[in-house]
Amino acid sequence: MDATNIAAQVTELSYALDTFYFLVCGALVMWMAAGFTMLESGLVRAKNTAEILTKNVGLYSIACIMYMLVGYSIMYPGDFEGGIFQSLSTIGSGLLGSDDNNAATVMAGDAYYSNLSDFFFQVVFVATAMSIVSGAVAERMKLWSFFMFAVVLTGFIYPVQGFWKWGSGWLNTGGFLDFAGSGVVHMCGAAAALAGVLLLGARKGKYGPGGQVNAIPGANLPLAAIGTLILWLGWFGFNGGSQLQVTGVDNANAVALIFVNTNMAAAGGLVFALLLSRFWFGKADLTMALNGALAGLVAITAEPLTPSPFAATLIGAVGGLLVVASIVTLDKLKIDDPVGAISVHGVVGIWGLLAVCFTNEDASLLWQLIGIVSIFAWVFVTSLVVWFVLKKTVGIRVSEEEEYEGVDLGECGLEAYPEFTSAE
Amino acid sequence: MDATNIAAQVTELSYALDTFYFLVCGALVMWMAAGFTMLESGLVRAKNTAEILTKNVGLYSIACIMYMLVGYSIMYPGDFEGGIFQSLSTIGSGLLGSDDNNAATVMAGDAYYSNLSDFFFQVVFVATAMSIVSGAVAERMKLWSFFMFAVVLTGFIYPVQGFWKWGSGWLNTGGFLDFAGSGVVHMCGAAAALAGVLLLGARKGKYGPGGQVNAIPGANLPLAAIGTLILWLGWFGFNGGSQLQVTGVDNANAVALIFVNTNMAAAGGLVFALLLSRFWFGKADLTMALNGALAGLVAITAEPLTPSPFAATLIGAVGGLLVVASIVTLDKLKIDDPVGAISVHGVVGIWGLLAVCFTNEDASLLWQLIGIVSIFAWVFVTSLVVWFVLKKTVGIRVSEEEEYEGVDLGECGLEAYPEFTSAE
Amino acid sequence: MDATNIAAQVTELSYALDTFYFLVCGALVMWMAAGFTMLESGLVRAKNTAEILTKNVGLYSIACIMYMLVGYSIMYPGDFEGGIFQSLSTIGSGLLGSDDNNAATVMAGDAYYSNLSDFFFQVVFVATAMSIVSGAVAERMKLWSFFMFAVVLTGFIYPVQGFWKWGSGWLNTGGFLDFAGSGVVHMCGAAAALAGVLLLGARKGKYGPGGQVNAIPGANLPLAAIGTLILWLGWFGFNGGSQLQVTGVDNANAVALIFVNTNMAAAGGLVFALLLSRFWFGKADLTMALNGALAGLVAITAEPLTPSPFAATLIGAVGGLLVVASIVTLDKLKIDDPVGAISVHGVVGIWGLLAVCFTNEDASLLWQLIGIVSIFAWVFVTSLVVWFVLKKTVGIRVSEEEEYEGVDLGECGLEAYPEFTSAE
Repeated sequence: MDATNIAAQVTELSYALDTFYFLVCGALVMWMAAGFTMLESGLVRAKNTAEILTKNVGLYSIACIMYMLVGYSIMYPGDFEGGIFQSLSTIGSGLLGSDDNNAATVMAGDAYYSNLSDFFFQVVFVATAMSIVSGAVAERMKLWSFFMFAVVLTGFIYPVQGFWKWGSGWLNTGGFLDFAGSGVVHMCGAAAALAGVLLLGARKGKYGPGGQVNAIPGANLPLAAIGTLILWLGWFGFNGGSQLQVTGVDNANAVALIFVNTNMAAAGGLVFALLLSRFWFGKADLTMALNGALAGLVAITAEPLTPSPFAATLIGAVGGLLVVASIVTLDKLKIDDPVGAISVHGVVGIWGLLAVCFTNEDASLLWQLIGIVSIFAWVFVTSLVVWFVLKKTVGIRVSEEEEYEGVDLGECGLEAYPEFTSAE
Repeated sequence: MDATNIAAQVTELSYALDTFYFLVCGALVMWMAAGFTMLESGLVRAKNTAEILTKNVGLYSIACIMYMLVGYSIMYPGDFEGGIFQSLSTIGSGLLGSDDNNAATVMAGDAYYSNLSDFFFQVVFVATAMSIVSGAVAERMKLWSFFMFAVVLTGFIYPVQGFWKWGSGWLNTGGFLDFAGSGVVHMCGAAAALAGVLLLGARKGKYGPGGQVNAIPGANLPLAAIGTLILWLGWFGFNGGSQLQVTGVDNANAVALIFVNTNMAAAGGLVFALLLSRFWFGKADLTMALNGALAGLVAITAEPLTPSPFAATLIGAVGGLLVVASIVTLDKLKIDDPVGAISVHGVVGIWGLLAVCFTNEDASLLWQLIGIVSIFAWVFVTSLVVWFVLKKTVGIRVSEEEEYEGVDLGECGLEAYPEFTSAE
Repeated sequence: MDATNIAAQVTELSYALDTFYFLVCGALVMWMAAGFTMLESGLVRAKNTAEILTKNVGLYSIACIMYMLVGYSIMYPGDFEGGIFQSLSTIGSGLLGSDDNNAATVMAGDAYYSNLSDFFFQVVFVATAMSIVSGAVAERMKLWSFFMFAVVLTGFIYPVQGFWKWGSGWLNTGGFLDFAGSGVVHMCGAAAALAGVLLLGARKGKYGPGGQVNAIPGANLPLAAIGTLILWLGWFGFNGGSQLQVTGVDNANAVALIFVNTNMAAAGGLVFALLLSRFWFGKADLTMALNGALAGLVAITAEPLTPSPFAATLIGAVGGLLVVASIVTLDKLKIDDPVGAISVHGVVGIWGLLAVCFTNEDASLLWQLIGIVSIFAWVFVTSLVVWFVLKKTVGIRVSEEEEYEGVDLGECGLEAYPEFTSAE
């Protein structure tokens, strides 16, 4: 066998490994859908559990379909011959067509993994962004209005700002850094959630007339715990896959460091949120600890590659402290977010984007701020418009009676735990 | 280093990657056991939960042991020197022996991954088939009779029809196409379940005297949701691993496309089952949505490689619509399947096998029909015989009193949720 | 392209695959944290559930931080230029620095995967050891005393004996065999747990005055089941990753065999524990079956590579029988271990270490005994000292009133299932 043949074989093997790495990471990110589903279903009351489950599995499916139909071609227009206005009939062949060419292009060194593995990795990201919204609007939003919003966010709002950064748009050109999406995914989801919550209002009974905040405890904390651990696991794919390539010593080392830093940031966030809740509230608040871990994960997402593991722990720890303070502050502002999603993904997402400047020499504080403001403004304003139109047409809030009885019966016609709870 | 040495190294590396890919996919399929366990335990009543958990972990273990002892050598007789009548003492060395030769054969180009990784991948498939049965016969079958059936199905019934297709038997030679097992695994499990349900009868109180169907709601829907999401994740291994090889540009692209199509079919199935239940029953029925996702997955399993992602979504969507209609129809026929397994895996399995003809030019409708009929007939008839023998000897149904009190106390001597439910 | 360049590319590709394999296996082991969390939260009473969740997510985070700060450099001193007394400021650069050199060393053939992927794999192991402790001391230990113990075990006690074996210390030199840690991880955790339980005492009401043992049933058995299945899945990474390399035909075959044997041992353990409980107690005790599977996994961990799959099944089966007998025996001795952790990981860990002698020609019974005694003595004695100091200073047991009311309210200030249980 001559050297040219062997070299071609090595290139093909490299291509296979990178594709497989991408698919494994994508599967881990898909698994995050289960994480959000469990986290949110554990943190709502029993009477609203079946509906939040339905929202989560529904939004994931809608995200996949909308992103395939239009979102991916908005975000990565160059990958489609027909551009963003391709007709329905060519979608499949569009994805397939560009892939069929891989066999040729890989030989020429242009492609280093299957385009379809990239699509798979991207499609589970948009679902993650949308999952963030469902928790914040839990326990009082109409199911089908939520799904209509999901269609617009996953098909249009998310892809546009995703194009700005990851589709080689103006934020990328300018110098905004967001390795795996503290801004593009997490703050994006939080901004859309905040817009929804502002138009939706708080749950009945959450805020008393004298300014007091009433705790509305979640019904099933083991679900919240496993949800958090699922997200923690899935985040190895989320951040680790964002290196986009594992072949080559530098890439392999980078992916390994990302795994370590992702893990350390989550650990730091959990420990410091737990300590702060212990000293602030006098108790080791499990829900704060869980949100602390998620905050650590969001914080490291913007730059998991340049910090040392020790620095990653600190970045996560600050995230853990911030999330506790943010949850308390939002409640003082009467912004009712049953699962803390706006704090975890929004406030800490901003922290993560700013923290890039501490460890990455290429970061520019100005461009980080431009990125934060522009992504937030785009997602918040467009989401506000969509929520507003939905509110004025089909309505976004269930009736008071339905909210009292629980949205499960009203929206889904069944109960999540028919034998565990009394008639309420 | 000369070219021959490098070429050998590349071959070895290829072997390692394919083996690792196979093992990762197999681990994902093993994880489907947790999916079935959670799905079924969420959809039964609290008083029957511990027993369904026991059945699921027990059947998985029995499947692994029986398939190692006899099943694998029935299904793939050529891989064993001693054929199917090897003695117990050589089983281990049989598996090991053929593997030891790999170091030699891989150099000659015969083997491209470890035989043991193939065994691992196959053994989790037979467990999947058996998992389908447990849900359908839930809440009224004797535990140990079920385990006895599991011994026969996983050691004999499944491997025989598996040999027909995947062991290069007559169905494969003829032209029957079933990429990852809509028929060999899913319809097989459903046929065995149907035979059991027909001999077992419906749960007390399910069907009223006037023909009405009484809903018996599941006790813990978050478990059903995470079970479905586990299955969704595991299915990437189920279908993705069935390509059998990831090295080479064509294989890598194929695996990537399979991941995408598997995901899209599930999404399509979920959305359309949810929409149909919304318009048919007036409510967004979560359990129908979950079964819709599973239906989408079963539907694409027969051919996840030739459809475009858009076509895969449609194939899944039809599966989602079919499963809702099938569940309603089976109830009209008083075939009591507490989790909808016969509809999901049987009816939609047939749909998947027929749908191959739409996208794969090599498919023959005649041979798809021959495959459906022969697999169904073989599994249904042999299962019926086994269930019948069990019924006439040890019995298959618990006493009316035990059914009323719950099979957990009678069979397992404990309760799944001792603190959550009252004395019932 | 000349042969030297291609050879370098192949080496790099090999490095990438081994790193990726290590990271995937490490992620599976991290997932075991979720397994322990669910298993333990399912087996305690509802009123102590939030606290055991907090302990599990907290100990995992503490383990990661302590092992990064000091543990890893104690266990693998050679990997750090500055040895174990490196300052905090160099920890990150220490880990990174040695990794930066990989690009050079890999070319020279010294390193075959990223050091950081090794750190990731090791850090999740120490968390596993600590997870074993939390279950045994459940329902009556103070939360923060437990965390203090976690700091010492994960930062010091575990790494010292880990160094003895895996850091090329005296046990390794002598000939003690422990492939993936039946002793170093599992018996280590069990020894620490036993020391704690002896100083802590049994739960109120567990043992009656007349010598009777009162069953205190777990509140949520589906959680125990999914916890077991998570551990089962994670164990593929635990044992499979301990081969340390997947490239090369021999390594790939070894990893495949380890996956198969791990699976078969768990299946054997489950079936035989279930059978024994059926014939001993008259009922198919689900919790015994689950512990049987875990026992099978612990038993095969010391040597998953030399047994045939059939022998692995037997090794697991003996583990399954042992664990049932051990749980009954410990109760007779009034050693109160709510989840059976000491039996599963300690008693069966010893069995696993001894069973090495049956299949591995290189094993020496003498050195296996020396390893068992020295690891047990080291961990038990140092743990006893730490628990004793904690008991005499901050205390290790909650008040009788708090134990009666449940540690959730006292330690965490919230309930795990506020709507499912009455005021108790």
